[in-house]
Amino acid sequence: MVMRSEKSAAERSGEAKPAKLSARKAPPRVEIEGISPELESGRFPVKRVSGDLVEVGADVFKDGHDLLAARVRYRGPGDRTWSFAPMTYEYDSDRWTGSFVVDRIGRWVFSVEAWMDEFATWKDGFRKKLDAGQDVTTELLEGSRMAAAAEHRARGAERVRLRELAERIADGGVPFSERVRTALDSELESLIEQYADLSGATRYDRELGITVDRERARFAAWYEMFPRSQAGVPGRHGTFADAARRLPDLAALGFDVVYLPPIHPIGRTFRKGKNNTLDPTADDVGSPWAIGSEEGGHTAVHPDLGTIDDFDRFVEAAAEHDIDVALDYALQCSPDHPWVKEHPEWFFVRPDGTIKYAENPPKRYQDIYPLNFWCDDWPRLWAACRDVLLFWVEHGVRTFRVDNPHTKPLSFWEWVIREVQADHPDVIFLAEAFTRPKRMKRLAKLGFTQSYTYFTWRNGASEIREYLTELTQTDMRDYFRGNFFVNTPDILHEYLQRGGRPAFRIRLLLGATLSSVYGIYSGFELCENVPLRAGSEEYLDSEKYEIRVRDWGAPGNLNADLAKINRVRRENRALQLYANLTFHHSENEQILFYRKAAPGNDLLIVVNLNPFAAEATMVHVPLDELGIDREQAYVVEDLLTGTRYTWRGVRNYVRLDPVAEQAAHVLRLVRE
Amino acid sequence: MVMRSEKSAAERSGEAKPAKLSARKAPPRVEIEGISPELESGRFPVKRVSGDLVEVGADVFKDGHDLLAARVRYRGPGDRTWSFAPMTYEYDSDRWTGSFVVDRIGRWVFSVEAWMDEFATWKDGFRKKLDAGQDVTTELLEGSRMAAAAEHRARGAERVRLRELAERIADGGVPFSERVRTALDSELESLIEQYADLSGATRYDRELGITVDRERARFAAWYEMFPRSQAGVPGRHGTFADAARRLPDLAALGFDVVYLPPIHPIGRTFRKGKNNTLDPTADDVGSPWAIGSEEGGHTAVHPDLGTIDDFDRFVEAAAEHDIDVALDYALQCSPDHPWVKEHPEWFFVRPDGTIKYAENPPKRYQDIYPLNFWCDDWPRLWAACRDVLLFWVEHGVRTFRVDNPHTKPLSFWEWVIREVQADHPDVIFLAEAFTRPKRMKRLAKLGFTQSYTYFTWRNGASEIREYLTELTQTDMRDYFRGNFFVNTPDILHEYLQRGGRPAFRIRLLLGATLSSVYGIYSGFELCENVPLRAGSEEYLDSEKYEIRVRDWGAPGNLNADLAKINRVRRENRALQLYANLTFHHSENEQILFYRKAAPGNDLLIVVNLNPFAAEATMVHVPLDELGIDREQAYVVEDLLTGTRYTWRGVRNYVRLDPVAEQAAHVLRLVRE
Repeated sequence: MVMRSEKSAAERSGEAKPAKLSARKAPPRVEIEGISPELESGRFPVKRVSGDLVEVGADVFKDGHDLLAARVRYRGPGDRTWSFAPMTYEYDSDRWTGSFVVDRIGRWVFSVEAWMDEFATWKDGFRKKLDAGQDVTTELLEGSRMAAAAEHRARGAERVRLRELAERIADGGVPFSERVRTALDSELESLIEQYADLSGATRYDRELGITVDRERARFAAWYEMFPRSQAGVPGRHGTFADAARRLPDLAALGFDVVYLPPIHPIGRTFRKGKNNTLDPTADDVGSPWAIGSEEGGHTAVHPDLGTIDDFDRFVEAAAEHDIDVALDYALQCSPDHPWVKEHPEWFFVRPDGTIKYAENPPKRYQDIYPLNFWCDDWPRLWAACRDVLLFWVEHGVRTFRVDNPHTKPLSFWEWVIREVQADHPDVIFLAEAFTRPKRMKRLAKLGFTQSYTYFTWRNGASEIREYLTELTQTDMRDYFRGNFFVNTPDILHEYLQRGGRPAFRIRLLLGATLSSVYGIYSGFELCENVPLRAGSEEYLDSEKYEIRVRDWGAPGNLNADLAKINRVRRENRALQLYANLTFHHSENEQILFYRKAAPGNDLLIVVNLNPFAAEATMVHVPLDELGIDREQAYVVEDLLTGTRYTWRGVRNYVRLDPVAEQAAHVLRLVRE
Repeated sequence: MVMRSEKSAAERSGEAKPAKLSARKAPPRVEIEGISPELESGRFPVKRVSGDLVEVGADVFKDGHDLLAARVRYRGPGDRTWSFAPMTYEYDSDRWTGSFVVDRIGRWVFSVEAWMDEFATWKDGFRKKLDAGQDVTTELLEGSRMAAAAEHRARGAERVRLRELAERIADGGVPFSERVRTALDSELESLIEQYADLSGATRYDRELGITVDRERARFAAWYEMFPRSQAGVPGRHGTFADAARRLPDLAALGFDVVYLPPIHPIGRTFRKGKNNTLDPTADDVGSPWAIGSEEGGHTAVHPDLGTIDDFDRFVEAAAEHDIDVALDYALQCSPDHPWVKEHPEWFFVRPDGTIKYAENPPKRYQDIYPLNFWCDDWPRLWAACRDVLLFWVEHGVRTFRVDNPHTKPLSFWEWVIREVQADHPDVIFLAEAFTRPKRMKRLAKLGFTQSYTYFTWRNGASEIREYLTELTQTDMRDYFRGNFFVNTPDILHEYLQRGGRPAFRIRLLLGATLSSVYGIYSGFELCENVPLRAGSEEYLDSEKYEIRVRDWGAPGNLNADLAKINRVRRENRALQLYANLTFHHSENEQILFYRKAAPGNDLLIVVNLNPFAAEATMVHVPLDELGIDREQAYVVEDLLTGTRYTWRGVRNYVRLDPVAEQAAHVLRLVRE
């Protein structure tokens, strides 16, 4: 028989026997599971911003019919003790919920604890027995005992009062009705609850983290510009002072963050020429991402931009306009970077003793040396990389756009972000990781505050719905904040190349309303749309390799659109939240229809995605979700034009003509 | 500005700084996440049966473009060392899979490890550079170095060979083409792979458990009978010997497990009379679940059933028919149980010194004392409860049907099941937990081998589809094995009460084909369907409170149906697996259509759920999944009748008349 041999196999196993029972280490009496929010069993923190209400859910249950009680325990940065938030449950669901406000930035932790509510259980049974006319003499004594037990935990007047109540309930000399009344009185219940014995409470076995960021981590409009292009005069290398002169305009347009590509000295060796050519002239300025020259590395500024003092002045000027300066953090070196001489051991060395340039065979990037993050001296290299960040933090930088983080160890990012945020929790990291989904997500989980997204490649209605639903309606909402850049120096999408000005206006409206944090790279507002060649997403005469002088007031610019949409964003809470997005039906697939909802601020947004022609549709308004009666008329106001429309019922007519400058409605539900 | 105050809040926080970097505790270089199967972060084991192939999946990735390698590490009971199974990945998915066979019962563990495949990465780049006509002199030296590094880890002839290869690749005197050929040769790759340096491999940070049960944990037909009813003579209390005389018939009908309600002495105090009345006569035999009398408790047998030796003989007789005996494990005591005198401290004591009977206010169950699992002496009580199981294990019992486990601590079950299975991994526990879903699931997760289900209450097509889809297509498939009892002494569903014999035949067919493990409680085969009263699911004259003598060959019995379906189950692998179920479209909602699939054994099952009338439908055969060409005719054979049908295309006609004894087809796809 199989059983015998199976048994002897088990006897051979030597598997550890279950732990011997010990009264000192009692197993849990209540089970707690299914906590939300919880990311990968608590391996990573979820993200919130200061002021958010954190809603905690948990499945809490035990055997039998006893009543339970549960609470959230939580602790903010700097708290020496735990705070508690009560939890309540939905009948028969075993699901408990509670909430608390994270009122300052930094790393928070929370957990859940639960226990059998002995008094509530007793009271419930007592009441039912009373109602059924059963003898409750013994039950009164039980109730009295619980009051007496609480008395021993209580202090002062409450202790005295508990003794009085315990005695009155137990006292056969007191009229029965009075004993019952005392036992059922809410005074007793609240006193016992106050001095409940939680020594046997079950605590969820993990503490879960919450990274609480400042508001701008979730709500901001970004503007990317190359400072060297800001002189406004052909042939002259722009400076920080030139860049600072653009700040008032950017502030007027409603931007919150100005992001500068690398501002460091640029290498000469294998410098790239215009349009990424390999034969530069002496005048070519090179790519700012080829960081480092004899003039310095990641903590130096390019001499043609000015001095570090000039940079400090730029940061101060930005602060006066309430604009954050974001720097590029690109961990790679030109062959001329000081580290190449000082720390050749931080790079990959080939058998012939030369340092290895970057490659993705057979492609070669000879102007760039990658760092060897796992070299023997890695702890010092990692510390040096951290110190670069801390250097710029000292110079007032609180936002870093991180170049290609997916080509550096994930462990490094988890370490360095915590290292910086431990002392500077206001620092924001944006991951430029255009890579496969799992790596993108992991970078967000391990600490990046924001992430670039696939948004630029999502231009049709169904792909926008699908992607945004994943971002905002799955657990990604808890850790991945998509910063919706509509273009970048690397990405000029075919949709913009072909669709012209209407396409630019459509994409701006989408970026600024689908996500609470979005950005443009300069030139977008001038509808620059000429690619390097057909089929390429690279710009012709890309600013990555040369200085570009632009006329910001040129005809056809989108400054008015930018100013308007950024103002609408600032005036409407619904556009400042990230995951409050739902899509609704539009009968014409060329027209996208979605809702952004905040308390008292409901926006219904309708966008014609066809940049070439007018489209009309019936949109299906989610009346039930909006709390609108089916028969009742309601008013929506287009925040872009001020026009009001009276709508009725689910289906309502919309026609949008991007060619005639009307690509979208941003309709606010007027509740009067 | 906000930033300043935020910063000082953080400075006050005292939050631990990130750990200092140390070369000795390097962070992982490869990320491993999303392991399957994994249950609640490894908190609980998944379940398999001996002989199963365990398919392991994992998301494995690192930064950059390096090629990776991964493997499953696993260890069976008794293994002193780890075994390994290679993993492969689907291009661009970051998803790796590997598998291994669990070839014996007991507790297995597995995990995943992954590392950068330095040589494969090098070889891939080398080949691309060669193809692009680039100079690869240095690359050859790099390849030679890798061979030399492997040489230092190799032994014997392979070490010598690696040295030869390393030298040949590096030797400028050897023709270039020969050096290249040597570097690209599979001999070198396999030698280097064999001696790969895994010291830097990343190991998934948890070991995940697999409880491997014997086959009958997943595939069995159960028969429940009260031994006291087996005398076959009215008025005489049946014995184990009487019960044993039924075994040949049960074996002939194809049953694998005979389950006996409690066989222990029955209490006298507050004994229940017939039909659960409170005024029994002296002749009333009482409920077997009121366990314990002066004659003994949970390790005694009821004297009227025989002696413990008689019981042993019953177990032996069952074994001769390859039938397992399942006992009821009901942890409660009648007031006459020996423990009440010997260990009053194991019960709930009221303030007046009396022991508390079971109650669910205002309902009282005075014939039962619940055990106080959290009494001060709980470690001894728990051990005593375990010893009850071990006592019966010593008497050859390997299967326990556990009564109301959800009214005893979940922690207790987790402990006691591991405690028993550590030495006896062949022991099967079936949870009778008719409770809310989360508690039911938790009991299954923490160790119960099988679970009763809501199946008896799922009689319509949509509710059957929904419930079975949850059981077999969600992660429940990994831990919850539903034992589909079609009736129990507590549950005579209205569907059976009203539908009569056709309903019984329909439910039998559903139970026996929807789940690989199912059961009937005796009387079902006689279509007993009279409830205690209208609206009740209790049987009239319930066997729980009296002896029931039955004529097993009475007209209208389902013995032929039982024998046939159990034979079909034994002959068809598809009916022996649990989660291999998919539902398919039937145009008439009264007819359910589903597929059970196993390699080489595809069953299409069609059941008319309407016991009152014939129904016809077009069923939609999943041709693509079955690999059948749309144009090609195919043959299906009804395993219940032997009739063959030639079908063609997706839609095929079926008519079933339960009243005329044809309630279902169990169609095997004939592949010839």
